[in-house]
Amino acid sequence: MSQPALQPGDTIGILGSGQLGRMIAMAAARLGLKTHIYCPDPGPAFDVCATFTLAAYEDEKALAAFADSVGVVSYEFENVPAPTAAFLAARRPVRPGARALAITQDRWDEKTFLNGLGIPTAPFARVDNVASLEAALETLGRPAVLKTRRFGYDGKGQAIIRAGDDAGAAFRSLGEQPCVLEGFVSFAREISVVGARGVDGSFAAFDVCENEHEHHILSRTIVPAQVSETTAAAAIETTGKIAAALDYVGVITVEMFLVEENGSDRIVINEIAPRVHNSGHWTIDGAATSQFEQHVRAICGWPLGSPRRHGRIEMGNLIGAQADAWPELLREPGVALHLYGKHEARAGRKMGHWTRVLPEG
Amino acid sequence: MSQPALQPGDTIGILGSGQLGRMIAMAAARLGLKTHIYCPDPGPAFDVCATFTLAAYEDEKALAAFADSVGVVSYEFENVPAPTAAFLAARRPVRPGARALAITQDRWDEKTFLNGLGIPTAPFARVDNVASLEAALETLGRPAVLKTRRFGYDGKGQAIIRAGDDAGAAFRSLGEQPCVLEGFVSFAREISVVGARGVDGSFAAFDVCENEHEHHILSRTIVPAQVSETTAAAAIETTGKIAAALDYVGVITVEMFLVEENGSDRIVINEIAPRVHNSGHWTIDGAATSQFEQHVRAICGWPLGSPRRHGRIEMGNLIGAQADAWPELLREPGVALHLYGKHEARAGRKMGHWTRVLPEG
Repeated sequence: MSQPALQPGDTIGILGSGQLGRMIAMAAARLGLKTHIYCPDPGPAFDVCATFTLAAYEDEKALAAFADSVGVVSYEFENVPAPTAAFLAARRPVRPGARALAITQDRWDEKTFLNGLGIPTAPFARVDNVASLEAALETLGRPAVLKTRRFGYDGKGQAIIRAGDDAGAAFRSLGEQPCVLEGFVSFAREISVVGARGVDGSFAAFDVCENEHEHHILSRTIVPAQVSETTAAAAIETTGKIAAALDYVGVITVEMFLVEENGSDRIVINEIAPRVHNSGHWTIDGAATSQFEQHVRAICGWPLGSPRRHGRIEMGNLIGAQADAWPELLREPGVALHLYGKHEARAGRKMGHWTRVLPEG
Repeated sequence: MSQPALQPGDTIGILGSGQLGRMIAMAAARLGLKTHIYCPDPGPAFDVCATFTLAAYEDEKALAAFADSVGVVSYEFENVPAPTAAFLAARRPVRPGARALAITQDRWDEKTFLNGLGIPTAPFARVDNVASLEAALETLGRPAVLKTRRFGYDGKGQAIIRAGDDAGAAFRSLGEQPCVLEGFVSFAREISVVGARGVDGSFAAFDVCENEHEHHILSRTIVPAQVSETTAAAAIETTGKIAAALDYVGVITVEMFLVEENGSDRIVINEIAPRVHNSGHWTIDGAATSQFEQHVRAICGWPLGSPRRHGRIEMGNLIGAQADAWPELLREPGVALHLYGKHEARAGRKMGHWTRVLPEG
């Protein structure tokens, strides 16, 4: 049975207190909704929510009180512990649901799921020990990328294995955890699709984003991506197909590689993020509906908004000390500055972003 | 000596917990600032701020703690008690300052100030008793509008005196308070200018708004106003002149009547609001910088942002039960819906607004 839609004045629950939770809370507030943030660590989302709970994800008493106080539960990160999600799902709708979380938490499951839908990924092999790693390297060749199956983000939990590298050392450097080995994909560009699926199965996607990374962290996004219309349409269609297969509710992001071969291009899925995404931050200033509002609409059982883009987009992340440039960015006409209210500008920490919306043409 | 500018991570203090304080807090959060709301009554701003204080404006202990916790104090409404403002100003910059508050709290002082700058208002006379009211009616004629000098808003504290009306009854209906009588202005349109003045004296204004009222409450705003370029420039110049004369810091709104005579038009000032204004809500979705961010920039000692408009604007208020239309508004592509998170849709209560940004031309 479908759940009743939330009403303005109701409360949404968000697991995680980082900048994504913060921006979801701010989008919810625009629509007259309250937010209750749940996190074991204080973070910048605590400053903009009606209520927060500082408790462990294993604290069932705190989780029960949290669930009682909200109409729907969502999260800002994919590594929500499965027992936490299951505990909450017994009490309130958790959106996106358990299947999306389970599949996107494990690189092996995710790639197997995608290939099962006929959607291409990098060639990959399961690695449980050095012997299976050696065998995988024989098949996939070098260079190849060894990744832990679980808990990787922003390049963490990854090791490149090049010709002459010691495979055993690479496996040990990742803590001898279950891994996947990915064959190297020689890609021309990295792109992403930020889409959303409603409770009613409706689907809407923002225009395809083109992303540049530095040290495995997103550095800059331009929209529209420099891809053919056919490829853009295929990227969006693929995202919709993935969302439908997961019976997904909320914003979903699919990171893709664009491979150019023989004068045409094709997409290869890198990974799925079951959440709002850094490459979609431009939508706050550059689209009719932001990805954060779109997520709120979806999880509340409300109609999706228009993803229409206002112009050509450039979005830049402010990583660590880059945020020190805030006075210059404030002075630049047409630049929208966003700072996340984090106290310490540690190296590699996402402190804010800026967006420039330029006329089309 | 000028005060040092605030830094991201610092806290701004806002007096008042309504929707204006709420939207200022949300704009501050975008820029990495925290907000501390101070109000004797809980309101929707409490749900989006880092800290709030629920205390009377006369509670000096609470005011002192509030001042200690913030880098600058501002307010969402002009009726801040003068002793409260003075108490806070001894501890922290209060922006806009005491002079702007004092003048805009009293219709007699405000009109006298404006006329002193050579800026036209409706003809007016001071009314302290029935005798002075009768004399003023002789001079200004009927119909005329009797208004309390202090604490009027949204048509409260006003009475129209038409031919045959009992002047004494009108004076008594307003509580026999000090009043001004305003001669009737036969205006073609009501317009407003939302401008901002920085600590450095810089000034920026959004394009002139044209406003429709129902039952003395703003109903709809369109931008640009249907006025000549000359009149629009004069309206903005006048606003800048007023702001400079008040040594103003923050967003200032000047409500004006457009009078058409002998084929040309001229402006007559209705009143000054020393704050962000309902007729500027469209700037959240329709301008490069919102009025709320502009106010935050100004009071923090930061550079003003670009007031550039994105297109033709329609903004509509959702008053009382009009907010029940939220599901339809959510479904309309290109409409940005804002709800203020108020619990009760009482008659005449501002529950939210919507903005539509249309292509120019």
